[in-house]
Amino acid sequence: MTHPSAELAEFAAQLAYEDIPPAVLRRAEDLMLDCLASILAGSSARPVQAMAQFADTMGPAGGPSENMVTRRGTSPLFAALVNAASAHMVEQDDVHNGSVFHPGAVVFPAAIATAQALGRSGRDLLTASVAGYEVGIRVGEFLGRSHYKIFHTTGTAGALAAAVAVGRLLNLDNQQMLNALGSAGTQAAGLWEFLRDAADSKQLHTAKAAANGLTAAYLAHEGFTGARHILEGPQGMAAGMSQDADPARLTDRLGTRWTVLETSFKYHASCRHTHPAADALLQVVQAQGLALDDIAKVVAHVHQGAIDVLGPVTDPATVHQSKFSMGTVLGLIAQQRRAGLPEFDAALDDPAIAAFRDLVEMELDAEVDAAYPARWIGKVTVQTRDGRTLSGRVDEPKGDPGNSLSRAEIEDKALRLGTYRNAASKEESQALIEKVWGLAGTELVGRFVG
Amino acid sequence: MTHPSAELAEFAAQLAYEDIPPAVLRRAEDLMLDCLASILAGSSARPVQAMAQFADTMGPAGGPSENMVTRRGTSPLFAALVNAASAHMVEQDDVHNGSVFHPGAVVFPAAIATAQALGRSGRDLLTASVAGYEVGIRVGEFLGRSHYKIFHTTGTAGALAAAVAVGRLLNLDNQQMLNALGSAGTQAAGLWEFLRDAADSKQLHTAKAAANGLTAAYLAHEGFTGARHILEGPQGMAAGMSQDADPARLTDRLGTRWTVLETSFKYHASCRHTHPAADALLQVVQAQGLALDDIAKVVAHVHQGAIDVLGPVTDPATVHQSKFSMGTVLGLIAQQRRAGLPEFDAALDDPAIAAFRDLVEMELDAEVDAAYPARWIGKVTVQTRDGRTLSGRVDEPKGDPGNSLSRAEIEDKALRLGTYRNAASKEESQALIEKVWGLAGTELVGRFVG
Repeated sequence: MTHPSAELAEFAAQLAYEDIPPAVLRRAEDLMLDCLASILAGSSARPVQAMAQFADTMGPAGGPSENMVTRRGTSPLFAALVNAASAHMVEQDDVHNGSVFHPGAVVFPAAIATAQALGRSGRDLLTASVAGYEVGIRVGEFLGRSHYKIFHTTGTAGALAAAVAVGRLLNLDNQQMLNALGSAGTQAAGLWEFLRDAADSKQLHTAKAAANGLTAAYLAHEGFTGARHILEGPQGMAAGMSQDADPARLTDRLGTRWTVLETSFKYHASCRHTHPAADALLQVVQAQGLALDDIAKVVAHVHQGAIDVLGPVTDPATVHQSKFSMGTVLGLIAQQRRAGLPEFDAALDDPAIAAFRDLVEMELDAEVDAAYPARWIGKVTVQTRDGRTLSGRVDEPKGDPGNSLSRAEIEDKALRLGTYRNAASKEESQALIEKVWGLAGTELVGRFVG
Repeated sequence: MTHPSAELAEFAAQLAYEDIPPAVLRRAEDLMLDCLASILAGSSARPVQAMAQFADTMGPAGGPSENMVTRRGTSPLFAALVNAASAHMVEQDDVHNGSVFHPGAVVFPAAIATAQALGRSGRDLLTASVAGYEVGIRVGEFLGRSHYKIFHTTGTAGALAAAVAVGRLLNLDNQQMLNALGSAGTQAAGLWEFLRDAADSKQLHTAKAAANGLTAAYLAHEGFTGARHILEGPQGMAAGMSQDADPARLTDRLGTRWTVLETSFKYHASCRHTHPAADALLQVVQAQGLALDDIAKVVAHVHQGAIDVLGPVTDPATVHQSKFSMGTVLGLIAQQRRAGLPEFDAALDDPAIAAFRDLVEMELDAEVDAAYPARWIGKVTVQTRDGRTLSGRVDEPKGDPGNSLSRAEIEDKALRLGTYRNAASKEESQALIEKVWGLAGTELVGRFVG
């Protein structure tokens, strides 16, 4: 069995802790902490609470896996579902540029819930998580830009990523892992249509990607079979949902290229497509000492994907939708030098920000678009009210692999996220950090908070 | 709000028992019995048992909804999941020709589980089920033939059908129902790729369509929002998964055209694409008194959809896959004059049937293809070993609306399905029949078996 889906399955089933370079393991810990803190930060939001209510109605009253939103135990399925719904809520979770995929939000909730239920070690959890990242990111790259125009890759590729992480913890063999991929791929879903209505579907996509992937892996463990060529087959995912799928991406340097290391942290609390322009504008306003009122116009020179995703959001109706509004993000950068969670909460009803949105335009830029998605270049042109035309440019936004966050910056971000809206206390957030940093020496993955 | 998705949502939210003609209600009862008996018939199958095991691991230990596979109570989510997995297992459940969609397998498991949990009446259940059929079938017609080439419409349109049925029982208002459609549509999935591997995904597709639709409706009840144009929007289902979607089909004569009445019963225990040719061959072998050995060659003149779905199945490895093998089905017709569940069980290892498969060819037929999917014409050409060339033709296969089953035939089929592999006793199956026939007078929907 030497087709791409089978090679991926074999890699995932056979990956051992000892195969993974220490730098990859440390980065996986960074990303896990970033995800867990994001889950806490999102936990009080209305869509997340609705999902938690659904889980209470449909799931067991207790169980071995940690629902971090309700702080109660449940079965792995509902812990994965609810925690994944929360992980993406505040738009602070990680992203892999080349695949335009948020791996952490789907991989960690599924893997942690399973590790807790099965009594696995921290090393097992890290190994499974790395397997989920490596497979999911390659699936996202394979599905390509045409897929992302309509489909939310985190929902689609995410199901396979979660299936692999859970499958590794279940010790699936090669054939079972291939079955898990088949069952995950045939459940893969998630459409961008919700964006123009500011609807809650993004939380549903991450929740269901984690839960569906977990379902696929557990079913495979029970002997349930799936398509063997779900990715590249003539009636598989690419055939149905992509026009530019490249099978070579699926198995690109498996075991030597570590996409975990290519995964970016989010510095701003907004859609990643806004970050390059935000960093470029930050450069201009800091260098020139500009305030919001000094600016007459901003043109963000962007890739087509930014226009596809952000274009429909002209007048954001919710805080969540405002994170997909280029005008809001650039307004906060000009006004506050920062676009974090508290800044977005204050911005929605700020007339100065609303007025600034009308001064912001996006324009397709040939250089930026050609570099995307391998590199996310930020370019802005600013016209000031006193008649100057200024340019800003960043070649790698803050949080990208070449401009990454230090452990101190990651800890600081985790503390801010964990204590946002009093989701957790400072002590609980600090304990969470310590628990993740000590994971490789933990024999039994237990609860992460409270 | 007068776009197609909104019109569908309003129809579903407002449909009242009194709006539905008695003939439609009686047919809905027929279809419900057909589905419940199919659930029993499938209950011992390996993929269904795997799903039941998964539900036991992840779900609550008890609950108000009836898991007909394990005969235990659970929450609505897991009852819908497991019963829907079983409903399609033996390929005897209903089909709507124009949409190539199996509505019963997804609508009834979700609706019954919800009605049981909420303490609704038989009339409520019938109303909700009709709403699910009417919406789901129109969604299937809308998505069109291009969709069905890659996607299993029962998995995709099925999620919306189930959402509507559950949403009606939850008394969702127009806006909540539209949210439920949005959340169902963005979860819609199911790829045909599994067919060439004889994998278990068909059971996963019905299970998840029912469970995902139920999830969408319950979430909408909790205030969770969805895309308002999930069907026809620029990043919605049609944009991502169809090349020939026709929005006019979505709202075609809502409230006056009753697609429940257009829904066919399956007479043979095989994929519906085999039925027209099976009936046409039955005509020839009965008229001419031909036995299996008398036949040198059969050409089935079919529509493209039959070639797409059945073409990959040349050497069936399982009983389930053999139901997608035109050669096996026609062999049983020639050998047994019948292609029911026991006949398929015996056929897989029968060398005479295996040899006959090599004598069967499918050919695309312009007339059959042009009529499809509105009409499923059956045409065969038979060459006998003594040198004759014979033709058979049926304009409407047995079980289609113009050639439907009587209540006596439906009862007979339900008894055969219910007692298949001792799923239920004859007495239990008889009681199930009586319960469904009395549904319109039932104040509280309780358990259907055991």
